[in-house]
Formats: sequence, C-alpha cells, structure tokens
Amino acid sequence: MTAPESSVSSEAAEAAAFVSPVDKPIGVAVLGMGNVGSEVVRILLDHATDLTARVGAPLVLRGVAVRDIGKDRGIDPDLLTTDVRALVARDDVDLVVEVLGGIEPARELILAALNAGKSVVTANKALLAEYTGELADAAESHRADLYFEAAVAGAIPVVRPLMQSLAGDRVNRVIGIVNGTTNFILSAMDETGADYADTLAEAGRLGYAEADPTADVEGFDAAAKAAILASLAFHTRVTSADVHREGISSITAADIATARAFDCTVKLLALCERVSDDDGNDRISVRVYPSLVPLSHPLASVSGAFNAVVVEAEAAGRLMFYGQGAGGAPTASAVMGDLVMAARNKFYGGRGPGESTYAKLPVAPMGDTPTRYHVNMQVADRAGVLSAVAAEFAKNDVSISTVRQEGASKHARLVVVTHRAKDSALAATVDALKELDIVTAVTSVLRLEGTSE
Amino acid sequence: MTAPESSVSSEAAEAAAFVSPVDKPIGVAVLGMGNVGSEVVRILLDHATDLTARVGAPLVLRGVAVRDIGKDRGIDPDLLTTDVRALVARDDVDLVVEVLGGIEPARELILAALNAGKSVVTANKALLAEYTGELADAAESHRADLYFEAAVAGAIPVVRPLMQSLAGDRVNRVIGIVNGTTNFILSAMDETGADYADTLAEAGRLGYAEADPTADVEGFDAAAKAAILASLAFHTRVTSADVHREGISSITAADIATARAFDCTVKLLALCERVSDDDGNDRISVRVYPSLVPLSHPLASVSGAFNAVVVEAEAAGRLMFYGQGAGGAPTASAVMGDLVMAARNKFYGGRGPGESTYAKLPVAPMGDTPTRYHVNMQVADRAGVLSAVAAEFAKNDVSISTVRQEGASKHARLVVVTHRAKDSALAATVDALKELDIVTAVTSVLRLEGTSE
Repeated sequence: MTAPESSVSSEAAEAAAFVSPVDKPIGVAVLGMGNVGSEVVRILLDHATDLTARVGAPLVLRGVAVRDIGKDRGIDPDLLTTDVRALVARDDVDLVVEVLGGIEPARELILAALNAGKSVVTANKALLAEYTGELADAAESHRADLYFEAAVAGAIPVVRPLMQSLAGDRVNRVIGIVNGTTNFILSAMDETGADYADTLAEAGRLGYAEADPTADVEGFDAAAKAAILASLAFHTRVTSADVHREGISSITAADIATARAFDCTVKLLALCERVSDDDGNDRISVRVYPSLVPLSHPLASVSGAFNAVVVEAEAAGRLMFYGQGAGGAPTASAVMGDLVMAARNKFYGGRGPGESTYAKLPVAPMGDTPTRYHVNMQVADRAGVLSAVAAEFAKNDVSISTVRQEGASKHARLVVVTHRAKDSALAATVDALKELDIVTAVTSVLRLEGTSE
Repeated sequence: MTAPESSVSSEAAEAAAFVSPVDKPIGVAVLGMGNVGSEVVRILLDHATDLTARVGAPLVLRGVAVRDIGKDRGIDPDLLTTDVRALVARDDVDLVVEVLGGIEPARELILAALNAGKSVVTANKALLAEYTGELADAAESHRADLYFEAAVAGAIPVVRPLMQSLAGDRVNRVIGIVNGTTNFILSAMDETGADYADTLAEAGRLGYAEADPTADVEGFDAAAKAAILASLAFHTRVTSADVHREGISSITAADIATARAFDCTVKLLALCERVSDDDGNDRISVRVYPSLVPLSHPLASVSGAFNAVVVEAEAAGRLMFYGQGAGGAPTASAVMGDLVMAARNKFYGGRGPGESTYAKLPVAPMGDTPTRYHVNMQVADRAGVLSAVAAEFAKNDVSISTVRQEGASKHARLVVVTHRAKDSALAATVDALKELDIVTAVTSVLRLEGTSE
C-alpha cells in the first residue's frame, strides 16, 4: 500500500530532500590499526546496530589500512589493505578515520579525503598543531567535516565544549594536564621521592613511557595540544611554533620535596591565557612547562596517567574536565563520537562548526608573560643576605610574596616566592642572583601557577 | 569591480546555495529577564562583534519579554515587551531563548516557536523532564533545533558531551551532583556539624535556598535533571515520573557524623544506571537520593554550590565534568553556546542532533535496582545480637560487607554495611530488623554509592 501523494506536504518533501535514501550506508575507512584503530574497528563491528540507530543509516566499515597485511587481527582479512591511498579514494568511502600518527602520509591522505568531500576524524595532534590551517581550509572549501576531539586529552570532551558549548562565552584561560606520561612520572616522584631518571625507567617498564620518551618528557606532545587548545579558546590560529616549551627532565627529587614543603605539587602544565599588552590590548600566551601547583587547586589531585583540563571563562567561571587522556579505548571513544556526528552530517546534510580564527590575537613572547617564580638558593649565613637578595628583586621591579630562610650553617637556604611579574624580569633577577657573592647556588627555579595572585 | 562570472565554479555556487545573504541578521527573542535572561541580554549586547564573527552573521536582539515593562533594566526600553506571544511570532525572530521557567506558558511558547520553524534554546529542566517528547517531535517536524545545555548543571557542558562526544560509546552510568542548594546544605552540615533545619535556614539567609525550598530539598529539581541525563545517556525517553526520588530533609547531624566515621560524606545524587534484569536484558534505573559516598570518590570533594557529573562509558572509562551548576552568568554561558550553535545552523543550514530514543529501554522499578545499604541500629547489649541481626540479612539473601559494634551499655550500637542487593530485599531486611526485640531502634538507613562492589 502506498500513501496517497496528497498526504505529502511540501514541508515533508523539503525535509526529505535533506536526507539520503534510508538504506544507503555510510562507508568508513580506518587508516591505521594500532591501539586506537583496533578499538575503533571493534566498536564499529560490535556496536553496528546502535551506531546505525544513532546515525540514521548503517555505518559500514569499508576497509582498514595496515602496514602488515599478513598479521591476524581478528577481523575479516578482506577488510585489510596496504594500499591506503586507494582505500581513501574508494567511491563507497564517505568518512575517513586517520589514526596513523605522524605528519606524512597522514597529511597527504587527510587532504585527499577532504578534497574529495569526505569528512575526516583524526587523533593526530602533531599534525593538527602544524597544519590545521591547511586542513581546515580544505574542509571548508569542500564542505566536509574535520573533527579531532581525540587529539587532545583522549576520551575527555574538551575540543567540542570549547568549540560549541563555550561559543557564546569569552574564555580567559585554559590550564591542562594533557600528557599522561609526564603526569605519571611526576606523580610517582611525588609519591616515592625517587629521582627523575629512576622514575622514567620505571614508567618505561610499566608501559607508560615510550622507548624514546622525548616527545612526552620534553613537552612536545603537550605543546601540540596547547596549540590546539589555544586556537579553539581564542579563535586564533596557533601552531606549535607559537608555544613556549620546557620539559620535565630537569625536575629533581629536591624540587618535589620543596613543592611539598610549600603545600604544592609539580605538574607539567599546558597553559593558554589571554594577557594584556602594555596598551591594554588582548594578546595570548601559550606555554608548556613544569610548575608548582597548590594542593588546593583542582589540577593538583589529577595523578597518574589521568588528564584534566580547567577552562576559565567570563560567564561560565571555572570548569574542569577530567578523565583518561590516552589509551586505545578512551581515545577510540572520542573518535567514535566524532565519527557518529560526521556521519549524521553526511546523512542529514549540514556541517559541524569549522575553524574559527577571526580574532587573530597576537601571541605574546614568553618574556612578556606574567608568571610567578619560586627560587631556591643556597646562601651565605650572615647578616644582610636577605636584604641583598631582596634588592635584586626590587631592581627588576619584581614584588616578593613570601620568603623562607632555613638552616644556620655555612649553607643556609633561602626560598623566595614572587608575585606575578613579567617572565623576563623574573629570569633577569635569577641571573643577577647567580652573580651575587652571597648566593652560593641557585638550586632550583620553578614557576608557580594556579594561584589567584 | 565585479568578479567575472566564469570564476564562480559550480562547487562554489553549490556552497553559496547553503548560506543566507551575508548581511541578513539572525533575530533573537529572549523570554524572561531574571538572573539568566539579564545575563543573556548583556552578553548579546556587549559581545555583539565576537558573536557575529562566530556565527557568520549578526545576532540581533529583537526583544525581551518581561512582566513589568516599567522597571528600568539598563537596556533600550523599546526592546521590552509584555506581549510574549507577539514577540515569538515576529517575522524577524529566528531564535527564541526561553528562560521563564515553569510549565506554562513556556511550553506553549516553545511549541509556537518550533512550529514556526524557529530554533529554541531553553534552560527549563522541569518542562523538559515532562514534555521533551512533544517538544522534540515539534522540532523534528519543522527541522528546528531544540537546545538545552543550560537545563542540567548550569555552565557545565554535559548535555552536548552526552549527545555528541559519547555518541559512539556505550554509557553505563551517570552519577551527578546536580542541585547546588542541597549540596550547599549537605556540605555545610558536614563542615559545621549543624543539623538540617538550622543549615537550611542559613542557606536561605545566604541566598542559596529559596523561600519555598521544596523543589530543591525534596529532590524534584535533581529528578528532572536525572530524567534528562538518563534520556541522553540511554537513548530512551525518560520523564520525571520514571525517577525514584528521595530528598534530604530527613538527613540528620548523626547521619553526617556516621558518614565521617566510615570515611564517607553524604551527597544528594542523581543516578542513571544501566542494570540487567533477571534474564540479562538491559534496563535502566534512574533515581535521586541522599547517599554515602566514599571520600576517595571524585564526587566527595564537590562542595558548596558546585555541581559535577561523572559519566562511565565502556570505551571512555570514567569522565568527570565539574563547575558552577547555577547562577545567572554560568547558566547564561550555556544558553549562549547553544544560541551560537543554533544561529550557525540557521545561517549555514543543517541541524544539531535531535532526540534519540531508539533504544526504548524499560525503566527498572526501584525495588529491583541493586544498591548497598548502611544500617545503623541501637541494639540490646547481649550475646547473640549479631547472630540474630545477621540472620535477617541472610533470610533476604543480602550479603553483609562490614559490621561495626560500638558501646557496651544497654544501648549498644551496631552498624551494618551490605554488599549490593536488590533494593527491595534491603528494605525488607530493614523492616524485619525493626520487628526484632533485640533491636531497640533502627536509627538511620542510608544507601552507599560510588563503590566498585
């Protein structure tokens, strides 16, 4: 029995024009079958019924690009291919999931997909932090979606909240613990009192650090994520090159102990802040470094391999997002969320919001960024030391918050915590302190973040 | 100078067909100018340039519906109207923000807007928890957006993460502190040791409790939010009537002290869980009640008027979202995010995801829901008491986790903490205990949530 034509209103007909034929499946190609890719494939196959209901049309896995086609991966071997370019180009592939990592061939493959009008979901922070502009332009030109929730903080929704939930607010600051390896190491150092080298070795044994841990421990991974977060928060194109970066390899057991003594812990932070220049105009500061964080700050209790991102916005106030920042399944959760949304857009028409760079805020040099320092010195134990040290801070227009003197031997210790000042003024003060006769050694310099001053 | 026609590619022409003329503004009507409405109006007026850049077209406030037009509200009085129906119906209104609260006329006005193809942003949890079905159907029929991030947990993005970020995952549990008034009261009782009545009065004086606090303290507000969260998490239409609800008005200072003694605190929780029936089929349990929460659980440290929502999903693991759950500015932040997204959809075409109810999971009765009980009794201090009490638990097939006996007088105290069992079996056990001669009084019964057992 067919419905009489008269029952089809013009509105219904118009609505029907937006949707593809109901039984037309949406084809998915997955590039890469490592930890994340395997989980994405598993979810696509195991939860096909749910995914179909959520998308409105069947989400069908067309193929998975792998390097070694001979390896048994527990799925139909006909789905595997080594010809990644041909897979992306297939007519029946509408959506491409890129979980290869690295710059090439990921960049070339994503561009090929977008230029063919296919939407792309990627977890590739290193690529995005360099080439978002080029990729976003391709997505825009061809009206495709480019989604990347999985690129920052694994399963934790932070890209979508920044792009969408906070689209009507003014974000002033994003502070995140966005690298699980370094957070695992710093948490373990805090718990055990062990030094950096031993803890890094232990992290490697436990699978929390890679054979070459440079990208994690030197802050490159966090810097890529900071660039992505800053781009979203401030509607400005920010790349890795704009991020001031310091890693955790010089953090000592003594630094951690000092942190404890000051009711703080040490965290590798990704910081994205709106700061003012001397004329009161907005600039942004994007930086990654290990920093003291007061134990009362919500990020202080984020330990082990967990991630968390704090967002401070004018109307929303302070928000925190917490969860598993890495691992196959959590990252796949973020990929799958993006994939369902991209598939819905394919099915119903429409597109998610693209790149927003209208604000074009200048990036402040690190030296101009207001920070607080925590300076640890060994000093001569004689009258006038404190006065001489304080004079160096004053010369550089740096205001001191607290001073602690310890010991009464030849090697007395002096700890100075400053108020906020330009980072260059703080650094110049430390350089000057090193030149003072009465300062035997500047034993550690750490920044202090997460305080209201 | 006009571009030669030949330079317009067919693809660009196709893209152009999707967008409205660039200079056509998108008209907004705001219904209600209380705490939230005032902030929405302020942001629309103060941040017009940013909002235009983010939407792609000017977002123009057409009018604000108020009850008292004579009151000075610091904006152009020509924007104010008491004729809310006429405002919604205006041809130059494309988007309607409903922050009136209450069922009518909010429901009628939202339906009028949706039926005219206008998108609606609302913060009205009570309305949504009853009428989401009707409203969502109207939105679907007329291809309009119905957004309601502000209805649950104020500024905290939780609606969009559940609908979109987790669209490809399988949510098993949502546990939230979603009512600021009750959390303020319970936190204050925990800190001061004061009793419920005094703390409620103090909360009223400080502006944290309304003159008639029933909706908050008896859990109606939290139950409405639980219904919304459960609907999103489980792709099932859930209304307030499906939610088992208990308030905090019977919580005593002694309950709080007992909680402390067991390294717990008391929180009013909104719980949405996937549970199995006897045949292993999925059902859902949606409930609001005060419960012991171990201090080690992330929700235990959410104090004062703050809100937090923990989501546990198969692939993502445990996520937590934290922030300000109420107040004019935080709620306006959520409204504005929705408004920008709805405006973008009007401008570019397309629609956000609508209601998803395909799973149609049955709601389990409270009696069938697995919970843990923490039972406090005054018992006769003689041999065999523990054995007699334990026998009652065993009769109902309830397994005991820990027992603590205190005191050696006529009024010895016995505290029993159970493993998970059907709530009806636990309740039956408590009823049976009350009948025992050796049990002088069952002084408190609280559930225990947030444990892995």
